[in-house]
Amino acid sequence: MKAARIHDYGTPEVIRVEDAPMPEIGPDDLLIRTVAASVNPVDWKIRRGYLAQMLNHPLPLTLGWDVSGIVESVGSNVTTFKPGDAVYSRPDIRRNGSYAEYIAVRASEVALKPATISHVEAASLPLVSITAWEALITSAGMQPGQRVLIHAGAGGVGSIAIQLAKAKGAHVTATASAAKSTFVRSLGADEVIDYRDPAAFAAARDLDIVFDTIGGDTQEASWAMLKPGGFLVSITQPPKPERAEAEGKRAGFVFIDPNAAILRDLATLVDEGKIRPVIGGEYRLDHAARAHEASETGRTTGKIVLYTGQP
Amino acid sequence: MKAARIHDYGTPEVIRVEDAPMPEIGPDDLLIRTVAASVNPVDWKIRRGYLAQMLNHPLPLTLGWDVSGIVESVGSNVTTFKPGDAVYSRPDIRRNGSYAEYIAVRASEVALKPATISHVEAASLPLVSITAWEALITSAGMQPGQRVLIHAGAGGVGSIAIQLAKAKGAHVTATASAAKSTFVRSLGADEVIDYRDPAAFAAARDLDIVFDTIGGDTQEASWAMLKPGGFLVSITQPPKPERAEAEGKRAGFVFIDPNAAILRDLATLVDEGKIRPVIGGEYRLDHAARAHEASETGRTTGKIVLYTGQP
Repeated sequence: MKAARIHDYGTPEVIRVEDAPMPEIGPDDLLIRTVAASVNPVDWKIRRGYLAQMLNHPLPLTLGWDVSGIVESVGSNVTTFKPGDAVYSRPDIRRNGSYAEYIAVRASEVALKPATISHVEAASLPLVSITAWEALITSAGMQPGQRVLIHAGAGGVGSIAIQLAKAKGAHVTATASAAKSTFVRSLGADEVIDYRDPAAFAAARDLDIVFDTIGGDTQEASWAMLKPGGFLVSITQPPKPERAEAEGKRAGFVFIDPNAAILRDLATLVDEGKIRPVIGGEYRLDHAARAHEASETGRTTGKIVLYTGQP
Repeated sequence: MKAARIHDYGTPEVIRVEDAPMPEIGPDDLLIRTVAASVNPVDWKIRRGYLAQMLNHPLPLTLGWDVSGIVESVGSNVTTFKPGDAVYSRPDIRRNGSYAEYIAVRASEVALKPATISHVEAASLPLVSITAWEALITSAGMQPGQRVLIHAGAGGVGSIAIQLAKAKGAHVTATASAAKSTFVRSLGADEVIDYRDPAAFAAARDLDIVFDTIGGDTQEASWAMLKPGGFLVSITQPPKPERAEAEGKRAGFVFIDPNAAILRDLATLVDEGKIRPVIGGEYRLDHAARAHEASETGRTTGKIVLYTGQP
C-alpha cells in the first residue's frame, strides 16, 4: 500500500511517499481503509524529531494521527464494528499513522463518523476536537453561562473550541488577528479581541475560563484575565500550581490522548449542526511534504487535509 | 482518463467506468482536474433517457453536472482563471459531465470554490444552490421578514433553500417526515410540518412564498397556503398562470441553468458560516452505479458525492 513515511527526522523533504507493508492487525484492532487524514502540528514536531526521545518510534514511521475511512476488517476480539462501517479516529500516536491507504487502530479509539459530513471533514476533527473537549469540559468543567476566553480562536483547536463552548451555552471571547475577526465571529464568538491591540487585550477581565493554546507570554497574560477562582487551562505548557495558588485561581493541563467517547458525543453535535469542520487546505497523499510546509508556516485558516484514498 | 459514461439509456448498470478521451477545451473553456462530483436527480433522469429528446446528447455520454476541482489549463480567451485555482461549477448539461477525472467547462459557468469547505462539500452545492437561489430570490423576490414554506426541506434543494431563506432573514416553515424533523430544524427551520399529518399540513396558511419542489398534489395544496398576492414558485412543473390569476396569487417556474454570479455570492455565504453543505453518501467513481441506486431510492439525507480525483 501507499504511505507517506519518514526514514530520518528533518525538513519536509524527508517525507517519502512509497510502498509500505500492509498494517497487521491485532485481536483488538480494526484495519481501516482510509479516505482522508488531517495534518496537525504534532505531525511535523514528530517529523522534526522533537518527540523522538519521548516516543522512541522505530523508523521508517508513517505520519498522521487523524483519520476517517471505512472498516476493512476487524480483529478476533472486536464486536463493536464491522467491515463497511464509516468511522473516524484519533489513533495512538505511538503506532504508525494515517498518511497511508490503510491503518491499524485499536477499536477502543474509534467511533462512527458523523453522518452529515464527508470523510474529508471528519478527518479534520478528532485530534483538535478531543483537545478542545478535554480542556474546556473535562479539565475546566465549563458550565452554561460561563464567560470563556479562547486564545487563537482561528486556529485548529481554537476554531472547534469556540463552537464547542457556544454549543454548551458559554459566552465566548476569542483572540484573533484583525484579518480573521470575521471568520472567528462566524464560528459563534460573541466578542473578538485583536491580540495585537494591547488595550483590548488588557480589557479582558473577570473570565471564568481562559483556554491557553499558545503558552509563553500568552499564558502569563492569562492569569490577570481570570476572575478569582477562575480556571486557566493550557495545552502547550503546564501552568505552575504554585502560581495558580498565589493568584487564587485554578489551572489544568491537557495532553491529548485518543478518546472514542468524546468522538461519539462530538458526532452528535456535528449532526445537529452545532459544530462544523473548517477546511483550509487539501492535498493528495503524494504532496504530504507540501501539506507540512503549509501547516508549519501557519498561514492557513482551517485544517489541512490529505486525501489518502476513496470511499 | 477515467470516466463514468453511458453508451445506452437504462438502469444503473448501463454506467461504465472506463477510459475516455481527454476533454478538448475551446477558447472560452477551462479544463478542470476534478476532485469531486455530486449526484443529482437530473443525472439519473438523463441516464434513463427521459431527457433524450430535449438534450439530444451524442453517446457515449459522461454523466454528472456538479463539480469541484483544480484548473488544469485555460482557453486562449480566458483571463478570469489560471491553472491551480480551486473552482466549483454547475456546468452546461448539454456537454459531457463531471463523473470523470477531467471536464471542460466554460469559464463563465465557474466560480472560485468557497475557501472554508472541502472540494467534496463544494461539489455538493452548485446545482441545488443555484436552483434554490433562482427560485426564492430571483423568481419569488424573497424579502427579509417574509414567511416562506419549503416543501421537502430535508431534500437536496430543500436543505439549501432553508439555510438560504434563513440567511436572508425569512421566517421558514419546512415540510419533512417526522424522522427528519430534527435534521430540518438543525438547518434553521423555525417550524417543521409533518407532510403526512393532514391537519398540520392544512394549518399552514397566510404564507408569502411557497417553494414547491415536488409538484402534483403538493403544488395543488400549495395555493391555499399562500396569502393573497403570495408567490408560488416551482421547480418541478410550471404553475398555470390562469390558476394564479383566479387565486389572486402569483407564480413562477425555475428551470435551472449554470449561473456563476450566484456561485460567487454563495461562496461568501458559505465562508461566513451561513450555509453548510450536507453530505449523505460518498462513493468512489468506480461505484457510480451504486451512487445512482442510492439517489434513486431517495433514502439518504444530504447530497451524494463521487470522489473523482484528488487535489
